[in-house]
Amino acid sequence: MRLTPGQVDAYQERGFVVLRALFDAEEVESLRAAFARDAREPGPHRVLEDGGELRAVYASHQRRPEFAALIRSPRLLGPVRQLLCPDVYMYQFKINSKPAFSGGGWSWHQDFAAWRAADNLAEPRLLNAALFLDDSTEHNGPVIFVPGSHRRAAQGATPRGALGASHVDPDEIALGRDEMRELVARHGMESAKGPAGSVVLFHPEIVHGSATNMSPQPRRLLIATYNDVRNQPSPAGAARPEYLVGRDTRTLRPDDEPITDGDLIR
Amino acid sequence: MRLTPGQVDAYQERGFVVLRALFDAEEVESLRAAFARDAREPGPHRVLEDGGELRAVYASHQRRPEFAALIRSPRLLGPVRQLLCPDVYMYQFKINSKPAFSGGGWSWHQDFAAWRAADNLAEPRLLNAALFLDDSTEHNGPVIFVPGSHRRAAQGATPRGALGASHVDPDEIALGRDEMRELVARHGMESAKGPAGSVVLFHPEIVHGSATNMSPQPRRLLIATYNDVRNQPSPAGAARPEYLVGRDTRTLRPDDEPITDGDLIR
Repeated sequence: MRLTPGQVDAYQERGFVVLRALFDAEEVESLRAAFARDAREPGPHRVLEDGGELRAVYASHQRRPEFAALIRSPRLLGPVRQLLCPDVYMYQFKINSKPAFSGGGWSWHQDFAAWRAADNLAEPRLLNAALFLDDSTEHNGPVIFVPGSHRRAAQGATPRGALGASHVDPDEIALGRDEMRELVARHGMESAKGPAGSVVLFHPEIVHGSATNMSPQPRRLLIATYNDVRNQPSPAGAARPEYLVGRDTRTLRPDDEPITDGDLIR
Repeated sequence: MRLTPGQVDAYQERGFVVLRALFDAEEVESLRAAFARDAREPGPHRVLEDGGELRAVYASHQRRPEFAALIRSPRLLGPVRQLLCPDVYMYQFKINSKPAFSGGGWSWHQDFAAWRAADNLAEPRLLNAALFLDDSTEHNGPVIFVPGSHRRAAQGATPRGALGASHVDPDEIALGRDEMRELVARHGMESAKGPAGSVVLFHPEIVHGSATNMSPQPRRLLIATYNDVRNQPSPAGAARPEYLVGRDTRTLRPDDEPITDGDLIR
């Protein structure tokens, strides 16, 4: 699959583009079921809210065949290779669960700030493909982007303290209030909305965040982050665990394997 | 001022109706300035967030002439008398400040549940007129209504414990999750959006709430609650303080006094 010139322009100008209903209802159902199973696996790859509910799960693509198939889908890999470069690998894979009624927010941040600080990643040669596992509406805490903010380098993004070996929460790299006031006055805000199965491609330096979810509808969001194979991390100390930072840096090849077949183990 | 038949129908069918830009920019500026001054007055009428920021201020109409004029404005009193009855008084007046970046949410609730429980109010013969002191957008924690939910009596609204003599927070009368799932599945959700100066009239039994505000824009909301003079509270014990429950139950007369003249003391 290839993006239209208009979609490419939108991504380059605004830092994100929404592809509506890129995956169908059956595929979404399969991914939801796979997530439900995977979310029961204990381990440090599971991040909890302060209240104990599930906030995020990392690296499901290493455990479930549906997600291993998904990241190779030409519907994701095609646009990613078109926008970034032909040779990409899976840098990070996570699902943010943002449950109904209680899902917490994510502070205003730029992803690359975390990856540069925690993994000593040289260049923002990455691309996020975020797949909606639920309808994303104005009411269930959608991702809010500051359109065009990716053109500003991730300069405000100084971590508040030493980043540990684990999950970096946006709170730790949140942008300051004065900076956010200025950015939003200049660029505005726009939330990524659409039916389940939609995908938003977004730049690793775009400023984004999301509010709490008080609605009765969950907002599960799967984020596959692709990196240029020539842009590998070179951490000063020990590398972060593999569930956070992919070590299989071989180029991903497009593969149109169905993502609904949960019995296949790759 | 009178509502059109379409607006009356909307209120009756859906439980709320938005009147866009009912007050102009100069009037809004005057009300904001009056609120800024009034918010500095210490006392129990000020409610703080857990983090210490201002959450709400009660009874500004008892202290500032701009608000005393506002509640008599034919632009509010006209529609209120049309929808409720000719003889109304000010039952409760509050401004919810929901500051930029940090404003907390308000749980799903029905206002009348609090007033029935705390003040032994017999009938839901009240009407809320909520004036936007800021643009209300999808990003700054707008009020979210469950349209049509006012037709269901405030039955789910059993207080979690004994209500004290002070401010009743919606957390104390929040609707349960199963109930909310069912209501939203049937009726959906709709947020009240519009430019500063807009007014939303809403029913005392409509289910509503609002999420946190992570945006750089505050969402100050002034809520004037009118009650039928024949529907006065008869609390079993001591009445709540006057900043929470109005004791001046004389019928309000429409008065087109300008609300921009802060030097007038009534």
